[in-house]
Amino acid sequence: MISLSQISDICDVSIGTASKALTGKPGVGQSTRQRILDVARQYNYRANRLVHAMQSGRSMTVGIACNNCQDPFTGAIVAGMLPALYAAKYDAITISWDLCVENQQSVLRTLAERRIDGLLMCPSAEPPSASYLAELNSFHRPIIVVDQEFPGSAYDFVGSDDAEGAFQATEHLIQLGHRRIGALSFLQVSTGRARFAGFQKAMIRHGLAMKERDMPDIQTYEGNEAFDAAVHLLCSGDAPTAMVMFNDFFAMQAIAAAHHCGLRIPEDISIIGFADLSFAAYLHPSLTTVAQNPVGIGKRAAELLLERIDQNGSGEMDGTPVCERIPVELIVRKSTGPAPKPRP
Amino acid sequence: MISLSQISDICDVSIGTASKALTGKPGVGQSTRQRILDVARQYNYRANRLVHAMQSGRSMTVGIACNNCQDPFTGAIVAGMLPALYAAKYDAITISWDLCVENQQSVLRTLAERRIDGLLMCPSAEPPSASYLAELNSFHRPIIVVDQEFPGSAYDFVGSDDAEGAFQATEHLIQLGHRRIGALSFLQVSTGRARFAGFQKAMIRHGLAMKERDMPDIQTYEGNEAFDAAVHLLCSGDAPTAMVMFNDFFAMQAIAAAHHCGLRIPEDISIIGFADLSFAAYLHPSLTTVAQNPVGIGKRAAELLLERIDQNGSGEMDGTPVCERIPVELIVRKSTGPAPKPRP
Repeated sequence: MISLSQISDICDVSIGTASKALTGKPGVGQSTRQRILDVARQYNYRANRLVHAMQSGRSMTVGIACNNCQDPFTGAIVAGMLPALYAAKYDAITISWDLCVENQQSVLRTLAERRIDGLLMCPSAEPPSASYLAELNSFHRPIIVVDQEFPGSAYDFVGSDDAEGAFQATEHLIQLGHRRIGALSFLQVSTGRARFAGFQKAMIRHGLAMKERDMPDIQTYEGNEAFDAAVHLLCSGDAPTAMVMFNDFFAMQAIAAAHHCGLRIPEDISIIGFADLSFAAYLHPSLTTVAQNPVGIGKRAAELLLERIDQNGSGEMDGTPVCERIPVELIVRKSTGPAPKPRP
Repeated sequence: MISLSQISDICDVSIGTASKALTGKPGVGQSTRQRILDVARQYNYRANRLVHAMQSGRSMTVGIACNNCQDPFTGAIVAGMLPALYAAKYDAITISWDLCVENQQSVLRTLAERRIDGLLMCPSAEPPSASYLAELNSFHRPIIVVDQEFPGSAYDFVGSDDAEGAFQATEHLIQLGHRRIGALSFLQVSTGRARFAGFQKAMIRHGLAMKERDMPDIQTYEGNEAFDAAVHLLCSGDAPTAMVMFNDFFAMQAIAAAHHCGLRIPEDISIIGFADLSFAAYLHPSLTTVAQNPVGIGKRAAELLLERIDQNGSGEMDGTPVCERIPVELIVRKSTGPAPKPRP
């Protein structure tokens, strides 16, 4: 790759003149400019954005930190972020907390050293350490927290209306006549806690009792724990008639568990998911679920970050942080139906 | 964030001395070094990697280009790449071809302008334009092509043994007594062509006839086209007894189509997938599929790129490009079974 100084040597002009010609600035004669542009094209000159970043104080790069880049929901959030960033000429450095070989604090330090202009952060489920928080607080660039809330932070947030979604899901089951409704929760994460709160709100509103054994809290997201918990409950002979699941992955495992236990869906047991991932419509039966809008979440988060960078690149917050919840929508398919008649 | 020159002012030393102290280089007295380190810590100094990149000619950044960041298979490839990159102190700028607002050529140019040290490239399905190829050829950094082959390129490649996987899948069905076997293909991509070739090889080896109507080539990856094609075939009353699917998403749709047409799986129709995505074991019935190793592909591709960067950062290839195919494995579950007895 040819350098700016090599171009200026070939054209017998100063580096300043070559730079003006290549960046479209005035002060260069038309024929000289054309000669410089021709040489640049001929030798495949590429502007050095590192130089631009040093001069302007803007690297035109933001960090995207996610929990698990294999999760299709995360992928959809990123798919919402990237076009908004590209449109504003930004690129993204992506980090996946679960894959960090060093601690999260040192990863944040690397991003600061790369002089990223802002950070789109899906926090990890573990509560942040004091040193991690200190690193974040000394970041001095805008930070938008995405999807999962960050305990005790004063950052802008964009996510889903999780509590409302679980409330609507539970209301749907109650309207279908279900009275004993269980929930497979994942309370390690803020979305899991919000969804469980929405479930409880609907149950309490209708004066319905909740049994502790009908509401297991799954500890390990990967693996078969949700399947095992659903089998334990559904094969017991004393099962709820409907289950609200933390998400579609848990619902998929609960459907498999119901088949395993010989229960018919929805005649014996209604099952409802959360997210509306691509497989939800193809499960057998097709899954009633609360559709989220991860692409919309990512898009809005990126737009908000770009606004913050334009307003005040230092990340100092003036005023209350924004908390935006992108609406969710109940999608009724065939995994939910009227409550079975009580046995005589 | 404090700058190097501010630190040198506070400590009343030269910028050179401050830099030596902070980077652990000799030539600074012990007490001066300690004073400089204390000030740096106190004011939260962060080294500027942009400066290091300009000085060293290494940005310690590689590009990861993928087709669709929402695809869990792509996510697993990236999940294999990132730890290998992190371990070597590299970060990754991720681009998703499908989300590029400008043409792919200009995205490649941006990466060159950012002086990335190498590129891990999952090519998009569309054949590359001449200008795109010219941009790639002028990149002068190592490039590893991943998962999908790049027509006519002389780059290193790491992917799956797709032909062998489809061959084994078809052999499995033939061993189960199936004689009329269909395939839902996706021939736009190199993996689709390789899998179809593996299917044909097994059929030809056993002297089995292939009917054109049993082998639809799906045109649109997103949406319901695979479901519709499977319904068309399976509800016709003249269906194959087994189907080899391009991947697990198509297989999921074919299973839903078989349910829709009132066919039992595997008693009436055996269905086999490709990939072994997280939902495959939870489909009803659980899916027989060819397990790939996307994390292993990503890991090996990143390792190979780092080797190339160390060998010869300019990307000039000496010798034949490497072509590595990570092994696949047939996982037999419950969606395949003995061929139904012919109707009398």
